[in-house]
Amino acid sequence: MTIPPDDRGFTLGDGLFETVRAEGGELRRLSAHLDRLEAGCAALGLPAPAPARVEQAMRSALEAAGLQAARAAVRLTWTAGSGGRGLDRPDTLAPRLSVTAAPAPRPSGPARLALASVARNDGSPASRLKTLSYLDNVLARAQARAAGADEAVMLNTRGEVACAAAANLFWERDGRLFTPALACGVLAGIMRGEVIAAAARLEIPLDEVRAPASALLNADAVFLTNSLIGLRPASSLGDRTFGAGDFAPRLSEICGEA
Amino acid sequence: MTIPPDDRGFTLGDGLFETVRAEGGELRRLSAHLDRLEAGCAALGLPAPAPARVEQAMRSALEAAGLQAARAAVRLTWTAGSGGRGLDRPDTLAPRLSVTAAPAPRPSGPARLALASVARNDGSPASRLKTLSYLDNVLARAQARAAGADEAVMLNTRGEVACAAAANLFWERDGRLFTPALACGVLAGIMRGEVIAAAARLEIPLDEVRAPASALLNADAVFLTNSLIGLRPASSLGDRTFGAGDFAPRLSEICGEA
Repeated sequence: MTIPPDDRGFTLGDGLFETVRAEGGELRRLSAHLDRLEAGCAALGLPAPAPARVEQAMRSALEAAGLQAARAAVRLTWTAGSGGRGLDRPDTLAPRLSVTAAPAPRPSGPARLALASVARNDGSPASRLKTLSYLDNVLARAQARAAGADEAVMLNTRGEVACAAAANLFWERDGRLFTPALACGVLAGIMRGEVIAAAARLEIPLDEVRAPASALLNADAVFLTNSLIGLRPASSLGDRTFGAGDFAPRLSEICGEA
Repeated sequence: MTIPPDDRGFTLGDGLFETVRAEGGELRRLSAHLDRLEAGCAALGLPAPAPARVEQAMRSALEAAGLQAARAAVRLTWTAGSGGRGLDRPDTLAPRLSVTAAPAPRPSGPARLALASVARNDGSPASRLKTLSYLDNVLARAQARAAGADEAVMLNTRGEVACAAAANLFWERDGRLFTPALACGVLAGIMRGEVIAAAARLEIPLDEVRAPASALLNADAVFLTNSLIGLRPASSLGDRTFGAGDFAPRLSEICGEA
């Protein structure tokens, strides 16, 4: 499948995506991804694709790539479809679905983090959605790579910790777990939600907070979450190194990610 | 030409665009557009396309659309090209050029403005570039349309006036002209630059400012600028109506836009 050059996903970043992990043919947490996609569509004023159509397209993409038995990332892209010149959407929307699959081996070892200067736009609803307008995240990641790190920490425009470029952030301090509140301009990550639920089951105290970067620098342990990696510990943020912490292994296990 | 679904412009909004006005076959202010594109590429770490290649593609697009003699918008899209999964660009970049042309009649009458709640991300370099991650602008415009207006006024995350969704903003007050400073998260518009230069020639006092929304509500006159519309007066912002002002007609004339 190819995309016409008047697709609004291509011209204006007007659309959403989801990245689902496939393992041995199972589409992990597919229903949660479909629910989030539907919520994102409502926020952007787009109709959502039929779940059965999405699942079929994902299975076809896995098969076409020969990845039915692999650990793979299946990416769904849902755009506002073709449109005329300018910012206004056409009167009749014809959204476009595109699905691709690629190998996604589990990352080896903990992540080294670097603080990016590109700010997360907590003043836009798009900061809480997985949209095609992802350039700020691309730039933040590039800054982290240039600093010799694996992943970026993004602060919002108030200087509060928001997220990594492609993951949610959690940190442990004095026996408590913390993660930025969604209002900080944070994607409602599916693994983020699972970890919050798992912490409740394990009776680990957890706070969704507005916190400055110093909170992260003062943490005992830090870990990243997203649908592809599950939970991944962070070993450092700049010059600051972190321990392994008490919570990540137990949370990984209860989330089926150990 | 079609776009492969792994193009990073499509998947991540990783790229830039320019919209050049063609009139009777002339590509207005082409060299200024090429200069801005080159600066944007430098900011994003992309190589820039050869100017001769761009001009050739623009003339071909006009011809293919049968618009050689028309007032038309020629849109150039320059992406980071195809890439693998994830945020990191491939080691070897192969940027992709796409050019389309569409009729662009001069808008009739002044614009009615509405204040959008979607904030401009002054904390990202992308807010000063014409990038493919334009969803905030799409959402701001949609808010303005829903309010019965033609165009949105966007404030940055500090509440300072930044720009319209698809234009720069100027306002007149007590014999002076004002426009938001680029540091407010403002695209360095080509017409914006022309108007600033024209104001200097006409000895109209002009300030590039950080100003709250009240500055706009207290203005005597407001106008929009971009490469396609030239200068376009605004008749209102919400319930507030504006006069025609003294400056816009003189500036239009000296910019060759009367």
